[in-house]
Amino acid sequence: MIEADEFEALVCEHVPLVGGMGIKVAEVGDGTCSILLPFRDDFLRPGGTVTGPAMFGLADVALYGAVLSRIGRVELAVTTSMTINFLRRPAPADLIAEARLLKLGRRLAYGEVLIRSSGVDEPVAHATGTYSIPPVASGN
Amino acid sequence: MIEADEFEALVCEHVPLVGGMGIKVAEVGDGTCSILLPFRDDFLRPGGTVTGPAMFGLADVALYGAVLSRIGRVELAVTTSMTINFLRRPAPADLIAEARLLKLGRRLAYGEVLIRSSGVDEPVAHATGTYSIPPVASGN
Amino acid sequence: MIEADEFEALVCEHVPLVGGMGIKVAEVGDGTCSILLPFRDDFLRPGGTVTGPAMFGLADVALYGAVLSRIGRVELAVTTSMTINFLRRPAPADLIAEARLLKLGRRLAYGEVLIRSSGVDEPVAHATGTYSIPPVASGN
Amino acid sequence: MIEADEFEALVCEHVPLVGGMGIKVAEVGDGTCSILLPFRDDFLRPGGTVTGPAMFGLADVALYGAVLSRIGRVELAVTTSMTINFLRRPAPADLIAEARLLKLGRRLAYGEVLIRSSGVDEPVAHATGTYSIPPVASGN
Repeated sequence: MIEADEFEALVCEHVPLVGGMGIKVAEVGDGTCSILLPFRDDFLRPGGTVTGPAMFGLADVALYGAVLSRIGRVELAVTTSMTINFLRRPAPADLIAEARLLKLGRRLAYGEVLIRSSGVDEPVAHATGTYSIPPVASGN
Repeated sequence: MIEADEFEALVCEHVPLVGGMGIKVAEVGDGTCSILLPFRDDFLRPGGTVTGPAMFGLADVALYGAVLSRIGRVELAVTTSMTINFLRRPAPADLIAEARLLKLGRRLAYGEVLIRSSGVDEPVAHATGTYSIPPVASGN
Repeated sequence: MIEADEFEALVCEHVPLVGGMGIKVAEVGDGTCSILLPFRDDFLRPGGTVTGPAMFGLADVALYGAVLSRIGRVELAVTTSMTINFLRRPAPADLIAEARLLKLGRRLAYGEVLIRSSGVDEPVAHATGTYSIPPVASGN
Repeated sequence: MIEADEFEALVCEHVPLVGGMGIKVAEVGDGTCSILLPFRDDFLRPGGTVTGPAMFGLADVALYGAVLSRIGRVELAVTTSMTINFLRRPAPADLIAEARLLKLGRRLAYGEVLIRSSGVDEPVAHATGTYSIPPVASGN
């Protein structure tokens, strides 16, 4: 319903706070979305690890991509809640987020996002979240 | 244990992703912290409201401030989990976050953050989160 | 919109798993609800503390009461998500939950619940959660 | 590190509130645990669906089993937080929970639980949670 290039452009133009972090949309699948966040020095926090808000922004747009992969370019879909657990302190390296939907209803979509450091198998963070889908988009 | 000015400088220097959003630390109390986020155009998302990751970053550092208000400048205290609920779509206006601790243990601190739009009483977001306190800081 | 007695009867009859734990609805206010859970031996878990699921059930119905305090006896309002943080291990004693709404929309209500051991000021658990309100009830 | 039979007996004896719901531990794997909750009339809530606290109790012990599958019979491992999202209203039928760890550290374990109705592929609930592991158990 939406291509990786189009979704990346959408985020860069219309969600500039996250687009400006330099995300690269690797793939938009069927209820899935993978996004790369190339490392930048300004993502660091004390301890020399990547700061939580960088990971939250990455998780949030990855889930947005997973939602739009199913419903098309419904820009007004918005996050209603998100829980993120930081599992390991990420080294100063690129991060990769993989989102997948667990439910797509008429009004709400729910999914999870796993974030890994590039080349490392164990996740550094795990998020779950809900998007609200506007009535027009869902045909109600 | 830490002054508002010192905490603001700490965030600006050492958490530049959030510091660079332009936060102003209004007050650091006893287990509390209030932070203002002056509105900027790049916080917008489709629909003309402030994007979730801006609110998450604000909530995260507000809780950081509430933790350091009790344990002093322990920069290595890190978020281990956070849940954020977006309650209303914030108008393009300044945001104010008020964090307060509900528990401070030797190893973990837990608190909540209420985010309002400037001049509006009803909250736009509510977050709860846990910080991990390094053993050295807590004297263990 | 609903009295404490009526709400307690509703839970005991129609949510028997939680009603059967022996809850006592202390007060239903305006967007608030307080419930007492008298201690029972079968709430214990290893370590001699009250088990998490007892506190979750208590928090869930306390929030249900806070929702119904505003919209009346809409039994079909249902929890869509809840996050609970266990802050201290509760002694084998009565628990008191105090719920309050932070938002009541047409379709969703959001609130928080603080659980304390009887006579102790510091909370043992804190929960936040969302209830979905059926369209008929909200007049849409 | 622990067998399904032994874990089921542990829950029934030492977490009687959940054991008394009639859980059947189907399998304890390597960082995984599957538990069946045979339907009972007292799990119902208004609307004729299974009540949230029944699912929470099921998720909580399933994650407990996944933790003990890796560290052995450390009864004092306790839940520190859990987030549960209710995705579909479960029919009055048996429920199956499948838990798996995403991280096992010295002091904290984190995992997720998917709950399905028997014979239905789409999940009815998804939970994530953290267990705290006592120092003795982890050898620190």
